[in-house]
Amino acid sequence: MTLILSNEDVNEVLTMKECIDALEDAYLELAHGRGVNRRRSDTLVPSNQAEVLYSLKTMDGIVPKYGVGAVRINSDLVSWPTRSGTMRREKIPAAPGGRWVGLVLLFSTETGEPLAIFPDGYLQRLRVGATNGLGAKYLARSDASEVALIGSGWQASGQAMAITSVCKVKRIRCYSPNADHCATFASNMSSTLGVEVIAVESPEKAIKGADVVLCATNTVDNIVLARWLEPGMFISSIKRPEIETAAILRSERVVIHTRDEAPIHTTSPGLVLPDNMEGKGWRAIAEIDFESLPTLPEVIAGMSPGRDTPEQITCFLNNLGMGYQFAAAGAAVYRKARALGRGHELPTEWFTQDVHP
Amino acid sequence: MTLILSNEDVNEVLTMKECIDALEDAYLELAHGRGVNRRRSDTLVPSNQAEVLYSLKTMDGIVPKYGVGAVRINSDLVSWPTRSGTMRREKIPAAPGGRWVGLVLLFSTETGEPLAIFPDGYLQRLRVGATNGLGAKYLARSDASEVALIGSGWQASGQAMAITSVCKVKRIRCYSPNADHCATFASNMSSTLGVEVIAVESPEKAIKGADVVLCATNTVDNIVLARWLEPGMFISSIKRPEIETAAILRSERVVIHTRDEAPIHTTSPGLVLPDNMEGKGWRAIAEIDFESLPTLPEVIAGMSPGRDTPEQITCFLNNLGMGYQFAAAGAAVYRKARALGRGHELPTEWFTQDVHP
Repeated sequence: MTLILSNEDVNEVLTMKECIDALEDAYLELAHGRGVNRRRSDTLVPSNQAEVLYSLKTMDGIVPKYGVGAVRINSDLVSWPTRSGTMRREKIPAAPGGRWVGLVLLFSTETGEPLAIFPDGYLQRLRVGATNGLGAKYLARSDASEVALIGSGWQASGQAMAITSVCKVKRIRCYSPNADHCATFASNMSSTLGVEVIAVESPEKAIKGADVVLCATNTVDNIVLARWLEPGMFISSIKRPEIETAAILRSERVVIHTRDEAPIHTTSPGLVLPDNMEGKGWRAIAEIDFESLPTLPEVIAGMSPGRDTPEQITCFLNNLGMGYQFAAAGAAVYRKARALGRGHELPTEWFTQDVHP
Repeated sequence: MTLILSNEDVNEVLTMKECIDALEDAYLELAHGRGVNRRRSDTLVPSNQAEVLYSLKTMDGIVPKYGVGAVRINSDLVSWPTRSGTMRREKIPAAPGGRWVGLVLLFSTETGEPLAIFPDGYLQRLRVGATNGLGAKYLARSDASEVALIGSGWQASGQAMAITSVCKVKRIRCYSPNADHCATFASNMSSTLGVEVIAVESPEKAIKGADVVLCATNTVDNIVLARWLEPGMFISSIKRPEIETAAILRSERVVIHTRDEAPIHTTSPGLVLPDNMEGKGWRAIAEIDFESLPTLPEVIAGMSPGRDTPEQITCFLNNLGMGYQFAAAGAAVYRKARALGRGHELPTEWFTQDVHP
């Protein structure tokens, strides 16, 4: 049977700690050449609405150790509005009921069969959070306890969940341009995580005195500036432009997620993506030589060093997501969901065939 | 609702003629920059079986005019056996019940929602056949009636269906290395198509005197040789190595499907693909300058000429499939299936979400 799972199923079966463990092991496999990731591709055309594009994004990966291959698909109407002075990349919930569309499909590497299909939302948050959590595990000071969190949205909650899984966090200072939203977020996260989360009025106030700086924004502009860095800090981002290039260059140890610098963009001829313009988005840190930087899987595998001294400024750039993460974390979701009898079972024959395609 | 269709649904709702029409119009859109295709990617790792690889293949495309984006996924255990002296690429039916796994997912470009999910087998045959059929429509002599068909498998039936849709075919001479299989195929196709289909003992016998030569094999070796070409012939292939490079070079008009020469291969480090070796498969016609050749969409749009004279030897290389074809033909399948009330309806909410992924 092929399992159809919901976001609630994913949320209830996989903890952040389990996701971190699944990814850590899978990254070790990847570093040793026993796994493979196909670079994300973004395919875009104009939509019927002005300044809105239709984007079909896919990424694939295979974790042979877990016996799982994954394809993650996002079918989005995307716009780039400017809010509070910064340009953001926003997906419009245009599907029936005001919903978004992201799917993960898991396949067996032993039989090829489709094992499960589910929305990507919760797993997306888990895998992004878990990845930056692993960055902190290997690059933050071992006694890190003060955390700055830039952003108060969906991904910010994942970052907060992850950092409290890998560090003994005393306090999280959170900043986002929408003060009300930030205050609500701080209050909710305090009760969820059982640590003090407070809203502050500027990114600078959040960052001052922090051991760990986590970005989780939709901005395509810089939000963490070099002049705010302090000795011993660990800084990390989930989108390339969040950290000012000067701040990356000032970090004594910089680790990236993958050497695939940017997605493969395929667009209608002449279509300009607001987050693919000079100095913005993907091109914001073009001065960084990605080829020369160690990756997180290499650091986890001990092929490249993590933090050397407590004073060092370290930086993890979660520069581009991998389908491989969905295979790794998705395998754990599938195994647990199966054991717990979650989801709708559909006949596998609906998704297989008796002809050689 | 999201439609789950079967291969039988696809087969019963879309005729070859309708598929040819849907593709022809979509190619026109593509030539004019109003559509987009993301190059096929093949991601491979070793499987648990010797000389068998696990392959996760994806391709995406969007046809704005039809309001549809498509992702086509193949999850295969692949081997490269040598049969009757030629190396073939074969997929092992390893899914439960001895089945193969290929899926098409269709999405709305207006709302992003998943419209339909169905196996790729029948649509795969239709879109490949329709594409070579369009090649013949623009490049074969207008009075072409004698057809050589190399191959007697699934794709060969599609080629036969397509050529009888675009030309007044009198006779098809079919060759495949398995004589029994070829005889059965010839007999079946004769009754299905209502034209004479006869099995012959060699590719040369099939090709001699033919106006149209269609290849539909799994070979990764050359099967159509330059010395067999005759004035006025139209030759075409569905896999790059089928036609000897010398035969391509001898053709006076060569048209390709797409300038994307080969899939993007991502593999475990050091993994060698039998069909990606020097002189074989994707590299078999490396001497051909793909950048300089016109594409089928350009010929359909009148941007590049088709056949000039009855004596000309013309050649169409269906060199690489496109996700774009699945969006174009899939949109037609979806529209008709919807109108006819075919398939299983699943709640679209299963495949959408209330969180910004």
